[in-house]
Amino acid sequence: MLSVTILGNNSAIPAFERHPTSQVLQNNEQSFLIDCGEGTQMQMMRYKIKPSRINNIFISHLHGDHYFGLIGHLTSMGLLGRKNPITLYAPESLQAIIELQLKVADAHLPYPLHFHSLDNEGILYEDKSITVRCFKVYHRIPCWGFLFTEKRNPRRIDIDKVKEYDIPVSFYDSLQGGMDFLTADNRMIENELLTVEGVHAKSYAYCADTIYNEEIAERVKGADVLYHESTYLDDLHERAASRFHCTSREAARIAKKAGVKRLLLGHFSSKYEQLEAFLAEACPIFENTELAIEGTTFLV
Amino acid sequence: MLSVTILGNNSAIPAFERHPTSQVLQNNEQSFLIDCGEGTQMQMMRYKIKPSRINNIFISHLHGDHYFGLIGHLTSMGLLGRKNPITLYAPESLQAIIELQLKVADAHLPYPLHFHSLDNEGILYEDKSITVRCFKVYHRIPCWGFLFTEKRNPRRIDIDKVKEYDIPVSFYDSLQGGMDFLTADNRMIENELLTVEGVHAKSYAYCADTIYNEEIAERVKGADVLYHESTYLDDLHERAASRFHCTSREAARIAKKAGVKRLLLGHFSSKYEQLEAFLAEACPIFENTELAIEGTTFLV
Repeated sequence: MLSVTILGNNSAIPAFERHPTSQVLQNNEQSFLIDCGEGTQMQMMRYKIKPSRINNIFISHLHGDHYFGLIGHLTSMGLLGRKNPITLYAPESLQAIIELQLKVADAHLPYPLHFHSLDNEGILYEDKSITVRCFKVYHRIPCWGFLFTEKRNPRRIDIDKVKEYDIPVSFYDSLQGGMDFLTADNRMIENELLTVEGVHAKSYAYCADTIYNEEIAERVKGADVLYHESTYLDDLHERAASRFHCTSREAARIAKKAGVKRLLLGHFSSKYEQLEAFLAEACPIFENTELAIEGTTFLV
Repeated sequence: MLSVTILGNNSAIPAFERHPTSQVLQNNEQSFLIDCGEGTQMQMMRYKIKPSRINNIFISHLHGDHYFGLIGHLTSMGLLGRKNPITLYAPESLQAIIELQLKVADAHLPYPLHFHSLDNEGILYEDKSITVRCFKVYHRIPCWGFLFTEKRNPRRIDIDKVKEYDIPVSFYDSLQGGMDFLTADNRMIENELLTVEGVHAKSYAYCADTIYNEEIAERVKGADVLYHESTYLDDLHERAASRFHCTSREAARIAKKAGVKRLLLGHFSSKYEQLEAFLAEACPIFENTELAIEGTTFLV
């Protein structure tokens, strides 16, 4: 099961009790932290996110509203005696900032902090249950989107059938992988007879700060949930473009073009106290849109 | 009028909804920010502190719980279009950290940020109403205390008397400064006849992270309010010393030795959910002790 919890949904300056950007994606094995604006460690406490489960952290770009909370999270983990490694996927310069901040404090993390510099599109992380890819988005400074895709077996064992045909348990993995079964007396039992269609592998796409760019729709095609920045409303679409941001309508156009199932809007400008208008403008273009409200957990 | 508002009172890791260290000292002219842990800009919003009034920021040392919120405050001021300069008094290395963080964001502050490196004890800032001095405290890395002292005229004009003796208004400042008045016919009118004792000039002393050291009592002698760190309770006095921190009893001893009027305890370890025991241990040594509870404003 894949779910995402919103810890911060505001852009640039905190306002109206909204915090700068941060989210936690969770599956049954672990949690993935996506961006880490100031106050993220406090927001984790508020919303009962266990920081100890976070082994991988993804930072989209080096504007402060996406990473000023990172050093606090990393050092707090150290003070709490963490031993498990953390891998940080981020633009290269972040490593020097962290090292300088540790150095002036004469501080040493008691766990290994691995740094993976974001340079090229492609796979960043992979285990038996999930793959994480990064792709370019288009902001004033280099910025990256992230695509989290579950790994699922395309076929699922049909328990009645495998009993009926007396298939050995050791062959179940091969069956789930799509193989046919050859009996001792050389009869071929086709995979489709022994399995049913597997559970759909879910995917979550995260697009932080970016100007409207249809190439993004290619990268996030068919995602179950797309989070897309939506800093402004449509009347400010020129300001949005000039600052390499999007409006809610533009986010909805990307969602529609990408054929995703659901759209989450976030990264709201601190101009806006009320957020309903973001939905009102996006829904006519892409109906299944929701606001990424802080503290909400969305099942992917 | 001098007052201090507590924005954060916890040490190291935020816990129990307590935030890392930050305080704002205010007089009629402006506000002084003292330390700036993560989340300070949000705490200012919560407690209605106007960040625009802060022209001078004092950072005691470069452990993260005392400055990780600074870059967020500085960049937010920039995004809000601030033009007035800010002067930052801090250990030297902080300048490189801020410059690096601005550089990677391709960001430029629209106001002048002056940096004053803390190297020697002495006067940091002075205007017509207040003087700010720094003094050494004794932590694992270089750390500074700050002493804020109001300027008050030692004498105040006695309106009835100056009318009676027909003293020109242009001489009032000299009278407040203690001078006698010489009349046109060469009569000397003594200052004490024309003035009464002035309002007491208040002082506020801030001692962040430090091991117990009686030299500090010399530096803060007679302060109206002393804020002193008090990370642990007495049963952990060895741990306190080994980490260059104090217990509440040690803070009370400094207050007593310095002959201050009032003691505020803060920088509580995240070990402690309840704080009453800090008072219980300090008050038998120094009665006029209070907990630096977040959101509270103390008149100095």
